Amino acid sequence: MGTAMTRDITCEQAAALLKGWDHILILSHTSPDGDTLGSAAALVRSLQQLGKQAFFACAEKPDPKFDYLLAGISQNEGQPRHIVTVDVADKSLLGVLEKEYGDKVELAIDHHGTHAEFSEKKWVDTASASTTEMMALLLQELGVRLDKSIADCIYTGLTTDTGCFRYRNVTPRTHRVAAQMLEAGADGGEINRKMFESKSRQQVEAERRVLDTMEFFCGGKCAMAFVPQLIYRETGATESDLDGVATLPRQVEGVILGITVKEKEGGGIKVSVRTNPPANAADFCKRFGGGGHPGAAGCSFSRGGIKEIGEKMKEACEAYLKEIG
Amino acid sequence: MGTAMTRDITCEQAAALLKGWDHILILSHTSPDGDTLGSAAALVRSLQQLGKQAFFACAEKPDPKFDYLLAGISQNEGQPRHIVTVDVADKSLLGVLEKEYGDKVELAIDHHGTHAEFSEKKWVDTASASTTEMMALLLQELGVRLDKSIADCIYTGLTTDTGCFRYRNVTPRTHRVAAQMLEAGADGGEINRKMFESKSRQQVEAERRVLDTMEFFCGGKCAMAFVPQLIYRETGATESDLDGVATLPRQVEGVILGITVKEKEGGGIKVSVRTNPPANAADFCKRFGGGGHPGAAGCSFSRGGIKEIGEKMKEACEAYLKEIG
Repeated sequence: MGTAMTRDITCEQAAALLKGWDHILILSHTSPDGDTLGSAAALVRSLQQLGKQAFFACAEKPDPKFDYLLAGISQNEGQPRHIVTVDVADKSLLGVLEKEYGDKVELAIDHHGTHAEFSEKKWVDTASASTTEMMALLLQELGVRLDKSIADCIYTGLTTDTGCFRYRNVTPRTHRVAAQMLEAGADGGEINRKMFESKSRQQVEAERRVLDTMEFFCGGKCAMAFVPQLIYRETGATESDLDGVATLPRQVEGVILGITVKEKEGGGIKVSVRTNPPANAADFCKRFGGGGHPGAAGCSFSRGGIKEIGEKMKEACEAYLKEIG
Repeated sequence: MGTAMTRDITCEQAAALLKGWDHILILSHTSPDGDTLGSAAALVRSLQQLGKQAFFACAEKPDPKFDYLLAGISQNEGQPRHIVTVDVADKSLLGVLEKEYGDKVELAIDHHGTHAEFSEKKWVDTASASTTEMMALLLQELGVRLDKSIADCIYTGLTTDTGCFRYRNVTPRTHRVAAQMLEAGADGGEINRKMFESKSRQQVEAERRVLDTMEFFCGGKCAMAFVPQLIYRETGATESDLDGVATLPRQVEGVILGITVKEKEGGGIKVSVRTNPPANAADFCKRFGGGGHPGAAGCSFSRGGIKEIGEKMKEACEAYLKEIG
């Protein structure tokens, strides 16, 4: 199945497809976040409500803070007849599942502007703040009755992909879907507490140390922070404990390009980029084979140490800022 | 004008009153925040749109980050014929304006559960996440045409009083009003950046120092941070730079009662309390003559040093947690 063969379909057509299917496997992306897991869990629950067999798979184990999304969700069993990806912008993001399923995806549902086609059909709506925002429309089309567990899933993707309704990707529709989910029983306050307000003491200590590494350059338009493995070892914090630090450099006044350089466990470097206009994080990361959204994107490096990649990013920032004026 | 004489009125009745008035002074509370300023500015702009004379006053100068709310708003001129307070829970919160206007308020519009009656009439809706959420209803009733500047005002109160739609006070209506304001032109992304994501380097450094002071007690259910004046002197941060630190103690896992003890410029101590259920910040602060919302409240002390008040709060936390079991 090649790129050229991917056909664009609408929400209605996606719903019609799903109505005709059974034994459906829903796949999430690696480093699973609230949006890919919320979308997958909402879709599995909905398809089951419609009397279908539906299963979930992800190449990587989700963080325990997402347990409430996945409670009672069936994991993949046997050979699925149909495969759907949710919030997966590139088939490489299927991780170890790419080999088995990468070329067999019949439907990709995604909201990333950087979506690289890999499926037979795709419904991609880049105007949606989250893939769960699309899910809300899809479930309505499918005639699914919203219950608390589905509403919690959809709300979770909305809030995690918008930094709790903070970012520029939020539209009136995002807020209306949030309203609908709260009415259907979503526990917004508790979900936000879990996603944004609950930090372990290790996490607080680790974040403080990351702040200590922050450097400014390009006349204060760029800020860069470093997360060496040492921080994890010395504080006891986990990698997912420090997911949030990517937003710290951009928070400083005047910074339009905020970079976080993380040393990954087992080697390699992950760079997270957060921008304010006119800087565009997805454009910046594209030149290193990465991708994401205009305000939040990332890229990875398998070679080079944390300081070396930091220097490389610094040069890239200077060049990029010159380009965009 | 005594407490017993305050009459409760509805949104419709408040609109009818305002329609019949002219030369109206709108008052905000001291330590003016996004909600009291957004409400006042939205109301002044709306009354002016209806062809009326309307003015704004506040005992304290708002932080420059709120300049976009107040641009072009007329300050109080001469003797107003009618006085309205917005988001003012107690007449003492009029500060130095209390003496002149405290007993002459004809209409109080507020959403605080701790509202202490002081006006001739009051419209208090504690189910509203912000006073600007009430404003949205009022302006509809008044037949005001929403424009970008009014929408920015209303959105600002919504987002600042809910921690960017994060807290438990958010209802479906809060999100629907937000959707309506974005449609009317509110620049949500930019407002949130200004309110939540823009920190000076001094602020980042000061916050890091506050984190250093954090203590845990009551088996990790309480956390307390201190903001001595020394931090301002050594980092160059201002008091409003550190408004946000009040939320830090509650963010730590397991903490249900988060306390911040701040030394005020010119003497006195301000205590900010943030809670997760079952702890109730307003109940806790009430015993020290303070008030606020279930999740966020405060109280002040004119006597005692920062450590002394810290010890007092620690004892009060222990007693309070025993009480609520």
